[in-house]
Amino acid sequence: MKILIIGASGTIGKKVTAYFKDKYEVITAGSKTGDIQLDINSPASIKAFFEKTGAFDALISVTGAGHFGALSATTPDDFKKGIDSKLMGQINLVLTGQHYINPKGSFTLTSGILSDDPVVHGANLSAVNGALNSFVMAAAIELENGVRINVVSPGVVEDSPGFFDAFPGHIPVKMDKVVPGYVRSVLGAGTGQVIKIH
Amino acid sequence: MKILIIGASGTIGKKVTAYFKDKYEVITAGSKTGDIQLDINSPASIKAFFEKTGAFDALISVTGAGHFGALSATTPDDFKKGIDSKLMGQINLVLTGQHYINPKGSFTLTSGILSDDPVVHGANLSAVNGALNSFVMAAAIELENGVRINVVSPGVVEDSPGFFDAFPGHIPVKMDKVVPGYVRSVLGAGTGQVIKIH
Repeated sequence: MKILIIGASGTIGKKVTAYFKDKYEVITAGSKTGDIQLDINSPASIKAFFEKTGAFDALISVTGAGHFGALSATTPDDFKKGIDSKLMGQINLVLTGQHYINPKGSFTLTSGILSDDPVVHGANLSAVNGALNSFVMAAAIELENGVRINVVSPGVVEDSPGFFDAFPGHIPVKMDKVVPGYVRSVLGAGTGQVIKIH
Repeated sequence: MKILIIGASGTIGKKVTAYFKDKYEVITAGSKTGDIQLDINSPASIKAFFEKTGAFDALISVTGAGHFGALSATTPDDFKKGIDSKLMGQINLVLTGQHYINPKGSFTLTSGILSDDPVVHGANLSAVNGALNSFVMAAAIELENGVRINVVSPGVVEDSPGFFDAFPGHIPVKMDKVVPGYVRSVLGAGTGQVIKIH
């Protein structure tokens, strides 16, 4: 099985990569690191990425940035950054990747708890995560040739202590609970699932 | 009470406008019709709109288009159209409008059933609607001076028979069930609510 991991050097990405890399053929990708570089904000860069990878069996996206800041000071431009990166970046990996993925392959995206449980300064990521969850439910009923799609929605993770103050009262999720969410999506049979790791 | 209705000439907008216009000061708006024209795809046009309206008490958005079509043929550009219009158009009405709204005012946006109950060809609108629902939950905990925000999420409505074939088995929602969703948001006290009219 050939697995593409986009955002492989990130907090979650490196743990997910560590799990899969000894068992499967893994191609890592990122904006500056990994086997192949790509800019997920650019549909052209995403297209060029798949031209390099060729056909694959699973794509795991653990990438994308959002805007974090007071709603009262958030501008349309600020908001657009998260839309272009974490939302459209991941969706465009699917829209373009669907033409390269092998039959019975799978897409696994990453959203997060803010879709349902907002925190102050997090409205952009709430919107982005809510969109990703609903997109996956909808895409699952259209993907062809047995291709599946799921999204992992983690809470704030133990390896990101810099975020703890922004999530008061949230109990950080252990990484050994997060990684299995991705494993379930790739190696399981579910589709259209929002895999909540809270 | 001064109410701005954006998309006032649309299928839902005209019924909502009919309800409020005799009881309150209503300013209607649309891309080509209404008291004031604006292009919700353009943050500059939205800013100019509020400079014309001045302070207001309630904003009702019943506007925004999405892409409807097969996922397998959907391009990043297709997807972006719904993001720029129904999603960012409505969110930018809030981001900019929060600086013009009176204390204790309210924003009411429009999403739709596809966030939770997808149909074939509807992945773009699923994503857009999911984002709007989560945005409203998050914005509600940050808006200042008692300003409220809700989103009405209708099913396919009886006045849009052109959509019935795309929603097999969905029972069209009567307009006299839809309009009260907007009334509840504007005249009630709730905030952060997804008002489902299914």
